[in-house]
Amino acid sequence: MADEVILLDFWPSPFGMRVKIALAEKGIEYEGREEDLSNKSPLLLKMNPVHKQIPVLIHKGKPISESLIIVQYIDEVWNHKSPLLPSDPYERANARFWADYIDKKIYSTGRLVWGTTGEVQDRAKNELRECFKLLEGELGDKTYFGGKNLGLVDVALIPFYSWFYTLETTGNFSITEEFPRLVDWAKRCMQRESVAKSVPSQYKIYDFLLELKKKLELQQQ
Amino acid sequence: MADEVILLDFWPSPFGMRVKIALAEKGIEYEGREEDLSNKSPLLLKMNPVHKQIPVLIHKGKPISESLIIVQYIDEVWNHKSPLLPSDPYERANARFWADYIDKKIYSTGRLVWGTTGEVQDRAKNELRECFKLLEGELGDKTYFGGKNLGLVDVALIPFYSWFYTLETTGNFSITEEFPRLVDWAKRCMQRESVAKSVPSQYKIYDFLLELKKKLELQQQ
Repeated sequence: MADEVILLDFWPSPFGMRVKIALAEKGIEYEGREEDLSNKSPLLLKMNPVHKQIPVLIHKGKPISESLIIVQYIDEVWNHKSPLLPSDPYERANARFWADYIDKKIYSTGRLVWGTTGEVQDRAKNELRECFKLLEGELGDKTYFGGKNLGLVDVALIPFYSWFYTLETTGNFSITEEFPRLVDWAKRCMQRESVAKSVPSQYKIYDFLLELKKKLELQQQ
Repeated sequence: MADEVILLDFWPSPFGMRVKIALAEKGIEYEGREEDLSNKSPLLLKMNPVHKQIPVLIHKGKPISESLIIVQYIDEVWNHKSPLLPSDPYERANARFWADYIDKKIYSTGRLVWGTTGEVQDRAKNELRECFKLLEGELGDKTYFGGKNLGLVDVALIPFYSWFYTLETTGNFSITEEFPRLVDWAKRCMQRESVAKSVPSQYKIYDFLLELKKKLELQQQ
């Protein structure tokens, strides 16, 4: 009980998926609690009063928020296996740089691709292409961004793979054709049990988006 | 030469100041190079091709970008004195959380206070008040956010103190009166040599802003 781990989450969130992958890589058992984001639980509001957002990891009763900070916490506390950050300070800084880049760019740009049309969408698509190009450059010939092993950058980026079909369908372009090396990397990640059980199917995410759009339209009427 | 440290910087940048404080705390000698942000040097564009922004720390010829990542790098490489992050993983996560909060909120909100008027400015002022209130709560009765010693959160926040007079004058409110504990903390920080020599005077920053506004007006004519 004293060492219990609870994750406040919402399953389509790429940020929550990051935490689930990290916990799975470390082999940590935990209790996942789904939040209804339109009616947040008193526990979420208490545990993350500043941002009021999922994911929140509660470890021994104490909350940690912000997905990349949670992943680093998990890596530091359960350091007996599967290191997610390199030991060399320069390599660590480089991993943090790209994880931060993904944080700043991919979600907000992706949201404009699936949530808008016309010129705004076109600009967002081109920005997303630029991001993917840079990321393919950083990946190079490595198996993972972390080298031979899955690392922080992989954990930060792979959840967005579950949104690729949604991005392709709403944006009318093919990530698979334009960025085959990135998609190959994603498929390699998906072969890992830790990732496969944490990142939902692309079709399930697309269904979720269609439902979400319906709800939003109903609210606007 | 092999161990040389170069900082690409622009003196009014709160982000550059963070790096200067961290280097000073560690007693690291370095060569500072001022960038002209309207005509960036080939070195800056080469060393930070992704964001093309200062600050960039070049250590042994290799670049590190993004101020909080640089500060953590400095703390990890020169770990012989003045630790900036706590050793306990939970305390580290908490420090990263507040440093990230400052990163996401203070600059963008502050910019709206000095760069806009009317309702937009009023909203930004209230948001900034909310931030300062939360930060005073986190500081509590401690000497520094880092406890007895200056830490990551202090290094992240104190540079913005140099912008307080600018915020107060353009926003027509008194941070000193409304947030005396935060200003007391800032004054304690400013008594440290590392901070005093890295954070310019509030009047110098205000003069800089007046010059900047003149330039922007000229460009718009």
